[in-house]
Amino acid sequence: MSIPHNRKRPMCHALNGTPLSSSVVDDASPENSHTAAVNRADQLFVPPLNFSMVDYGIYRCGFPDIPNFPFLKSLGLRSVIYLCTEPYPEANMHFINSNGIRLFQFGMEGSKESFVNIPEGLFRSALQVLLDERHRPLLIHCKRGKHRTGCLVGCFRKLQNWCLASIFDEYQRFAADKARVPDQRFIELFDISSIKNLPSSTPPYFKSRNR
Amino acid sequence: MSIPHNRKRPMCHALNGTPLSSSVVDDASPENSHTAAVNRADQLFVPPLNFSMVDYGIYRCGFPDIPNFPFLKSLGLRSVIYLCTEPYPEANMHFINSNGIRLFQFGMEGSKESFVNIPEGLFRSALQVLLDERHRPLLIHCKRGKHRTGCLVGCFRKLQNWCLASIFDEYQRFAADKARVPDQRFIELFDISSIKNLPSSTPPYFKSRNR
Repeated sequence: MSIPHNRKRPMCHALNGTPLSSSVVDDASPENSHTAAVNRADQLFVPPLNFSMVDYGIYRCGFPDIPNFPFLKSLGLRSVIYLCTEPYPEANMHFINSNGIRLFQFGMEGSKESFVNIPEGLFRSALQVLLDERHRPLLIHCKRGKHRTGCLVGCFRKLQNWCLASIFDEYQRFAADKARVPDQRFIELFDISSIKNLPSSTPPYFKSRNR
Repeated sequence: MSIPHNRKRPMCHALNGTPLSSSVVDDASPENSHTAAVNRADQLFVPPLNFSMVDYGIYRCGFPDIPNFPFLKSLGLRSVIYLCTEPYPEANMHFINSNGIRLFQFGMEGSKESFVNIPEGLFRSALQVLLDERHRPLLIHCKRGKHRTGCLVGCFRKLQNWCLASIFDEYQRFAADKARVPDQRFIELFDISSIKNLPSSTPPYFKSRNR
């Protein structure tokens, strides 16, 4: 699978601009490749179950465990939004404390099956935290990153003016065969009219750049 | 689903810090709520099929169509990495030209079923574009955002030192019942040892912030 040094450039159309530079790809001797591979294998990251980026400075996942901590550390988190009722495990508590991460726990029962049990007030409070940029980068998680996390992200997408079809598509991608109609109905009926400070769709990092 | 003004604050533990502020949630009269809802309905965004954020300034999706353009415009894209052989449709070409977006087309056949047909050189060139921060924010897409896009994102995750289990988990989340073992084998065997400028795991936006 190594790339010969004299390999011809493959078909690539770079439209509206200058040709591609080749600065990224370097000639690699077998010795260097081996060393690099060994070094990389030593520090492989293990993102938590169902991990994904939601938006700038907002991540989601299932319950993180010890093997995930080096990866989470690399994200430079400031906050964790934790959506379960159970106390945060000792190892996780140690991780966030030793990395200066603030924990926001909104205790929601995970066994909910019917719409009436979804705690709207808790989602509203969790959104408060989520919308405050001072808390980012932040990580949202529950147990499996499907239902509670999916509902919170769904409410956030409403604030971003996503259409419901796209919100449900995203919800279902993470919930997979565990997708629940009541969760999606909750997102549909969740009233965002009283929530101010709508998040900008323009990424903050690129706001200051001149195009 | 409206929230009474005197609703009690739900259970929320804000650990390691000050109490939550309530600045985000405002009292909403029925009239104001209705107006806000109408305004929002007028500008609902329609993200493309299989849309997601990959990393800071990197997005992925299936083929965008006209209803998706207002949403894509909101992302402030600088570049599109397009992984199909077919010419870019006129409407899409008009969209990117009128928004100053640069198109990088790497023509890969979508009907590949076997490993030997996966064009490694094209993926390597596409990675060059992807790794150059000057091209971001950028959008990667093919037809359905499953296989070609999934392979490119998988190679990018290798550069981020993700373990293969997590890379495949992400690939499968987007490919769903269309997941292909040859695609995942390609990602596994893809040699990253010759690629420099490894992307930092620290988000660029937050680098300049003091914690």
